[in-house]
Amino acid sequence: MDAETRADVLKRLNYIDGHLQGIRKMVQEEQYCVDVMKQAFAVRRAIEKMEAKMLDGHLHHCVADAVQHGDTEEVFGELVELYRLANK
Amino acid sequence: MDAETRADVLKRLNYIDGHLQGIRKMVQEEQYCVDVMKQAFAVRRAIEKMEAKMLDGHLHHCVADAVQHGDTEEVFGELVELYRLANK
Amino acid sequence: MDAETRADVLKRLNYIDGHLQGIRKMVQEEQYCVDVMKQAFAVRRAIEKMEAKMLDGHLHHCVADAVQHGDTEEVFGELVELYRLANK
Amino acid sequence: MDAETRADVLKRLNYIDGHLQGIRKMVQEEQYCVDVMKQAFAVRRAIEKMEAKMLDGHLHHCVADAVQHGDTEEVFGELVELYRLANK
Repeated sequence: MDAETRADVLKRLNYIDGHLQGIRKMVQEEQYCVDVMKQAFAVRRAIEKMEAKMLDGHLHHCVADAVQHGDTEEVFGELVELYRLANK
Repeated sequence: MDAETRADVLKRLNYIDGHLQGIRKMVQEEQYCVDVMKQAFAVRRAIEKMEAKMLDGHLHHCVADAVQHGDTEEVFGELVELYRLANK
Repeated sequence: MDAETRADVLKRLNYIDGHLQGIRKMVQEEQYCVDVMKQAFAVRRAIEKMEAKMLDGHLHHCVADAVQHGDTEEVFGELVELYRLANK
Repeated sequence: MDAETRADVLKRLNYIDGHLQGIRKMVQEEQYCVDVMKQAFAVRRAIEKMEAKMLDGHLHHCVADAVQHGDTEEVFGELVELYRLANK
């Protein structure tokens, strides 16, 4: 992972972590479960955005390098696998 | 949220939190971004399982109560909304 | 399924069917694959909306009836299963 | 889209189309809505598999070409966008 992506991802992890602690607090304070579930959805969406950021870095570095070296089978296979797993 | 669901959800939050810290470590150690992304998927799936647990508690308590009291519009509307948001 | 939901779902199926035929035409005309993929996403979203409509009918009829008859285990179990499968 | 991918995608579209007609029949025959919803999930999964097939062809042709020509901004941007839209 390049330095810029890494810094961005670590910042996002802090945010996600804070959001999770907020959910824990809501559960401990016995807030309405539907509201807690909506916050859990929001955390998942924040994780998806972090994944998109990592994918962007991955394409511009690992994938671009691999294509330059004519070594595409593995990286393309991984991308299709990521795509399938992301929806599971 | 009933006590049994709350205890289960808090345990799952601990697990998810530990998993997230593992991702942070992978990022700091500059591990391969595709592997980090797969761990991020796994965290999302763990959150979905926690949501399913909350939904189960919600149905057996809030929804069942509301139906008993003939007061279904709000809870059914919320369930359809949750279903749509969960897929976003 | 109640008559109103059934009529709505059949109308949505017609729309989805027409959308799919549009995708087939795009593929036969060799349009850009990224554009075809975006249309495939749109079809999936239309199917999700149809599911939400069915869920709404299901809650107001089958689930409400089951709760009235104190027969909730099966319908609640199904709802949690639907929720999990919907995200797969 | 290359010829092999196109042939595969058209075959998948036929299958998806047949599956959709099966759902229409289930609705007309007033089958249990939970069973209809599960079939709708299955259609969405079949569409996702078709998307993965298109992505595979896209990577090996359009993306590989673009990287060879040093023209990556657009294709990488599209891939990240596809990834985000796929989860919506």
